[in-house]
Amino acid sequence: MKHTVSVLVENKSGVLARVAGLFSGRGFNIDSLTVGETQDPSMSRMTIVVNGDDAVLEQVNKQLNKLIDVVKVQDFKTASFVEAELVVMKLHSNSKTRSEIVQIADIFHGKILDVTDKNIIIEATGTTDKVDSLINLLRPYGIKEMARTGKVALAKG
Amino acid sequence: MKHTVSVLVENKSGVLARVAGLFSGRGFNIDSLTVGETQDPSMSRMTIVVNGDDAVLEQVNKQLNKLIDVVKVQDFKTASFVEAELVVMKLHSNSKTRSEIVQIADIFHGKILDVTDKNIIIEATGTTDKVDSLINLLRPYGIKEMARTGKVALAKG
Repeated sequence: MKHTVSVLVENKSGVLARVAGLFSGRGFNIDSLTVGETQDPSMSRMTIVVNGDDAVLEQVNKQLNKLIDVVKVQDFKTASFVEAELVVMKLHSNSKTRSEIVQIADIFHGKILDVTDKNIIIEATGTTDKVDSLINLLRPYGIKEMARTGKVALAKG
Repeated sequence: MKHTVSVLVENKSGVLARVAGLFSGRGFNIDSLTVGETQDPSMSRMTIVVNGDDAVLEQVNKQLNKLIDVVKVQDFKTASFVEAELVVMKLHSNSKTRSEIVQIADIFHGKILDVTDKNIIIEATGTTDKVDSLINLLRPYGIKEMARTGKVALAKG
């Protein structure tokens, strides 16, 4: 089962390596991970998406809570939350396909970040499902390079 | 100096911990890191923003290249590139401040993800500078929670 775990940590060198090590030590492959600043510069928020056994993940969460640099762990298994991720894609494009690609990007409220005679770079956001749909629609044009941020999530209400 | 490093890696358990460990072992604090799928499900792309000495970072890049799961390392020091990051923020809001917050979000082409009588959750994307500006504009309303994905970057052209 896929789990989304949000971990508030102190912004110190080595914290990321320790948290990532806890997951890999238990054989979890991390599907995506983001870590960035919060409203308080001394804290960072990590959002981790992992696929794995519920009982083992509960153990990992307990061990996360024991790390001194970890302030709070939230597992969004049950809580109602909003999620979003960002994708940036460089696609093959020419005078024939460019308008089709732009049209698809528009449907997803995407932005065009760069255009040359051979390539186009687009940016889009949404839930993981929505981003997957966009990628599937654009795949036939030829994706040259792609970077997904991975999901960020916040509890509702 | 701030560096943006893009690392294409094989999608295997433990790779993230090893890469993060290389940076922290050299005393680099990672400002942000994202890792997510690419167009090829067997590969992931990591985008890492670090602050540090040029010469030491060159050493880290060399060591990254030696890891067997690392396919390609790009340091966007010189290359022309596009960048984007995503922020999701939960703000205090009431009947008086809601419309002001929505107006600011609109200027930044943000989206409203959730609204209650006490809170509002907004999503926005842009360069790091643009996201910083938005956060500074919204800070006076009271940021309850915030998650930034960190930057993703692709070379232009």
